[in-house]
Amino acid sequence: MALDHSLIGVEGPAHERTWTSKDTMLYALGVGAGTSELEFTTEKGQRVLPTFAVLAAQAPGRRLGDYDPAMLVHAEQAFELRAELPAAGGVRTTTKVTGIYDKGSGALVTTEATAVDLRTGEVVIANRSAVFIRGEGGFGGDRGPKDSWAAPDRAPDHKVTYSTRPDQALLYRLSGDYNPLHSDPEFAARAGFDRPILHGLCTYGVTGRALLHTVAGSDPARFRAMSGRFTSPVFPGESLTVSIWADGSDVLFRTAKDDGTVVIDRGRATIG
Amino acid sequence: MALDHSLIGVEGPAHERTWTSKDTMLYALGVGAGTSELEFTTEKGQRVLPTFAVLAAQAPGRRLGDYDPAMLVHAEQAFELRAELPAAGGVRTTTKVTGIYDKGSGALVTTEATAVDLRTGEVVIANRSAVFIRGEGGFGGDRGPKDSWAAPDRAPDHKVTYSTRPDQALLYRLSGDYNPLHSDPEFAARAGFDRPILHGLCTYGVTGRALLHTVAGSDPARFRAMSGRFTSPVFPGESLTVSIWADGSDVLFRTAKDDGTVVIDRGRATIG
Repeated sequence: MALDHSLIGVEGPAHERTWTSKDTMLYALGVGAGTSELEFTTEKGQRVLPTFAVLAAQAPGRRLGDYDPAMLVHAEQAFELRAELPAAGGVRTTTKVTGIYDKGSGALVTTEATAVDLRTGEVVIANRSAVFIRGEGGFGGDRGPKDSWAAPDRAPDHKVTYSTRPDQALLYRLSGDYNPLHSDPEFAARAGFDRPILHGLCTYGVTGRALLHTVAGSDPARFRAMSGRFTSPVFPGESLTVSIWADGSDVLFRTAKDDGTVVIDRGRATIG
Repeated sequence: MALDHSLIGVEGPAHERTWTSKDTMLYALGVGAGTSELEFTTEKGQRVLPTFAVLAAQAPGRRLGDYDPAMLVHAEQAFELRAELPAAGGVRTTTKVTGIYDKGSGALVTTEATAVDLRTGEVVIANRSAVFIRGEGGFGGDRGPKDSWAAPDRAPDHKVTYSTRPDQALLYRLSGDYNPLHSDPEFAARAGFDRPILHGLCTYGVTGRALLHTVAGSDPARFRAMSGRFTSPVFPGESLTVSIWADGSDVLFRTAKDDGTVVIDRGRATIG
């Protein structure tokens, strides 16, 4: 049941992904954009939500060892966007595991992905992500780097609430993550949930929309980077309130449910 | 500006269309199916909404003459389903214009389509549709056959109300009908609407769900045929109430908005 530490630092095979205008419209609808965001949800002068970068630069995960996949949760997600993504395009992505940290109750596995535009050969996306694998800790390893994030000592500069829909996960999953945890009540019950939960990356995309429209003037070209830690599940239909502290181009944020439960913590964004 | 009557009865080129499980899930979500219809919206034991037959057997329209496309509206749609559609599959469809009728203010052009399953070679879908082209009537032609449809002299046996969402058309259009009348406020204004209208075939699909779940036991294999006439536009976000009269396998229906405006009239369905 141990994780394979020899994978650290080894670059995986390159993975190509192309996307169409329909794919990016479907993604926008999947993260809750609608009739007030037609530049993202229709092909007329279409632009792409910055958080699509995470999907664009996703590569098939390598097996990290012989653990139960049901024990794995998405823990952290960061991306940098070096150029605005086209409505239709493609990238070649390479990934490598950068660390396997011992958190006691589980292991935190961090991965970096770098995506090169298929047309220009330039790096357009740099992703960092982490998954937490319950039951795979306690191997006597390093706990990993500390994060100095702290909410500023003032009320948020902006609070934005977006609702999600009961069928939000059913729509979001058509962007490619068909994990039945997000659609199948029986599977969700086996994982300990009353009903299917929303994809963390859907919550992330909803949060990205709030940031885009609140501090980036709805201009994807100004959206340079975003990161956050997933701290609690969201059920489709729940509302999400993004609290935003903006100091020039450096933005901190936190996303919470109506009951105050924080679902994305330690959020950072860079706005140009 | 006249229509080309020489097209009547001439079979167009065959058109092949294949679809994936994702296509049929996206269609189901597009016509409003959600978490209570997981057998249509997820791939687990997936089945296909019968009204997908209309899209499966659609072929590119032939130019019927030199008219303004903005003057054309979908007027009637009927389909027969000879076998339950697979979640993923394909058909080869041939179409022919069957009539060009003179309605005075415009022309009614009727078309038949026959779709053969690519695997079995059997006819699986027979569609009939009609479009109304404003300004193309008055050529001294036949008014076309009369329809004897009449609502029974009793209250409907069932009334089912489904809501549509403000972004319903944005989602539905990803199933292939990108007419900006359904997404672009400026285009809709030029066509005389305050805002984009819902696709007639989306209203048709919502109506089909009501019929399926009310008189066909939610079993697509029992859904043999459906027809109706589009009589008024629907705006995304409006609710639709389907009034159903069922006499054994013969079903009559009518779909109306909250204000009573009938949007699909002279509805018929055959349930096995």
